[in-house]
Amino acid sequence: MGDTRTVRVKVPATSANCGPGFDSLGFACTMYNEFSLKLTEKEGLEFEITGDGADAIPADEHNVVWRSARYLLEHTRFASVYKGGVITMHNIVPLSRGLGSSATAIVAGLKAANALIGNPFGRRDLLQFATRIEGHPDNVAPAIFGGFTVSTTYKGRAQTFSILPKLRLTFVAAVPDFTLPTKVAREVLPEMVTREDAIFNISRAAMLVAALLEGNAYFLRNSLYDAIHEPYRMKLIPGMQEVFYAAKKAGALGATLSGAGPTLMAYTLERERVAPAVADAMVAAFRRNGVRAKAHILSLDTRGASVLGGFL
Amino acid sequence: MGDTRTVRVKVPATSANCGPGFDSLGFACTMYNEFSLKLTEKEGLEFEITGDGADAIPADEHNVVWRSARYLLEHTRFASVYKGGVITMHNIVPLSRGLGSSATAIVAGLKAANALIGNPFGRRDLLQFATRIEGHPDNVAPAIFGGFTVSTTYKGRAQTFSILPKLRLTFVAAVPDFTLPTKVAREVLPEMVTREDAIFNISRAAMLVAALLEGNAYFLRNSLYDAIHEPYRMKLIPGMQEVFYAAKKAGALGATLSGAGPTLMAYTLERERVAPAVADAMVAAFRRNGVRAKAHILSLDTRGASVLGGFL
Repeated sequence: MGDTRTVRVKVPATSANCGPGFDSLGFACTMYNEFSLKLTEKEGLEFEITGDGADAIPADEHNVVWRSARYLLEHTRFASVYKGGVITMHNIVPLSRGLGSSATAIVAGLKAANALIGNPFGRRDLLQFATRIEGHPDNVAPAIFGGFTVSTTYKGRAQTFSILPKLRLTFVAAVPDFTLPTKVAREVLPEMVTREDAIFNISRAAMLVAALLEGNAYFLRNSLYDAIHEPYRMKLIPGMQEVFYAAKKAGALGATLSGAGPTLMAYTLERERVAPAVADAMVAAFRRNGVRAKAHILSLDTRGASVLGGFL
Repeated sequence: MGDTRTVRVKVPATSANCGPGFDSLGFACTMYNEFSLKLTEKEGLEFEITGDGADAIPADEHNVVWRSARYLLEHTRFASVYKGGVITMHNIVPLSRGLGSSATAIVAGLKAANALIGNPFGRRDLLQFATRIEGHPDNVAPAIFGGFTVSTTYKGRAQTFSILPKLRLTFVAAVPDFTLPTKVAREVLPEMVTREDAIFNISRAAMLVAALLEGNAYFLRNSLYDAIHEPYRMKLIPGMQEVFYAAKKAGALGATLSGAGPTLMAYTLERERVAPAVADAMVAAFRRNGVRAKAHILSLDTRGASVLGGFL
């Protein structure tokens, strides 16, 4: 068959949990990593990795883009055909900050390999592959589908429902200059929670979805709170409470820990045009706590991972 | 001022929890209790109570309709004016079965008293009063607002968002011939739940709301499951699992414990016209477990408690 052409893929950053929706809710935002993949019949891998944290990314068979591409190929008759590849990665999404950078690489590998062999798999299939590779659907789901996503898992199988809010939101991601491995952030969580705390989250996750779909800012503001992970992770992120407070004081509807952190994500109404003020307030509050942070003003990505401009 | 005229009020039955939405979700359905209230300047109460469980309802100052009416009046200057009343109650909603019969009485007392003194309070005020009287907003919220309700509580203050689904649903309430006091049904619940079970419910409560508002039957079917109360209450309701299974086999999207039970509530799509078959299947499954049950085929009430045809 010969080597494939090169396909380019763009995958959005994602913010999981959204306050009350621990391991359930997420959204994709307008910050993207770009990837390209060419599959070769000959063994051997070539990489060109640029951008944030390029040095930390393995340029061998352990590379996540490659492993994910292989994972997909192994479900097809092409596994024995394509044994090598040429991969480029351009990283904009900061690594290990709670913005789903690893999910972008997984989804890119799957999406690109799928495109190169004629798209035998749909997005629901890619979701299963990605969830098995990542271990949970929190970031891969919004990275694949775009929009806000509601995901359930049952016996390892993920179901994702992507929804588009009736409110125009602008997000402010305040990204501290330290990393927080998800493993560490998981370890501080208790195995048991009180029924009361569970209900706190159940009711707010349900209200958050209702508020998004009905376009109700009042109830959105009321629902961006969590009782089962943020209180425990607070100690890992100096100034977290103060940054939340500063964001709200500057006009945000609310703020949440993005994924397992350390990025803090504020939600604002686009029409209120407060995002720049919120960004300044969050960075300043981090600074008062000895943390250097950079703020990014983002919108909702409604498309999810996409193949760019056909083949090269 | 003299005695008031008589006001008539109609209040819907309600089904709380809806599977994953423990203490958070509920809906109002087309089964109603009717009440009338006249306030008198003279002390003394007159009652006319008919319908289901009429003998069990106190006909004195402990009557819930009267207590609720008084509770509202005590927030106004009318508390010292009206010291007695004439109350009629016609009960259709079965008592202590998980269909919010006590909530209908609370909401009726509040709604009627409010109407008689010129409606100084809005529905959000009535919600606060009712939640304080009942102790939780589970049934009073849908009884007041109608539709599906998402309720959060914070420091005793309830917030309720009423939503109307984009799917036409028909419900089947299978009502066993035994009662289950909420207190007993609460006592079997553990104080702590695993994080995993909490997430199970968080994700499904969020998906249930998304499915209702987007009119998605597939995801609705996927979300009508619970991990934090139904498994514990199952032992109080002989045949519960079998009734759920029978409902689904007969074409229901799913089935849940209604409130604290013992009523089991199946959800069906109106367009599929399976409700009669589901009703038969549920009653038969209960019968096989030695329980006599009656099935009611119901729709969503979208209006909530209402004052009927003005004053008499």
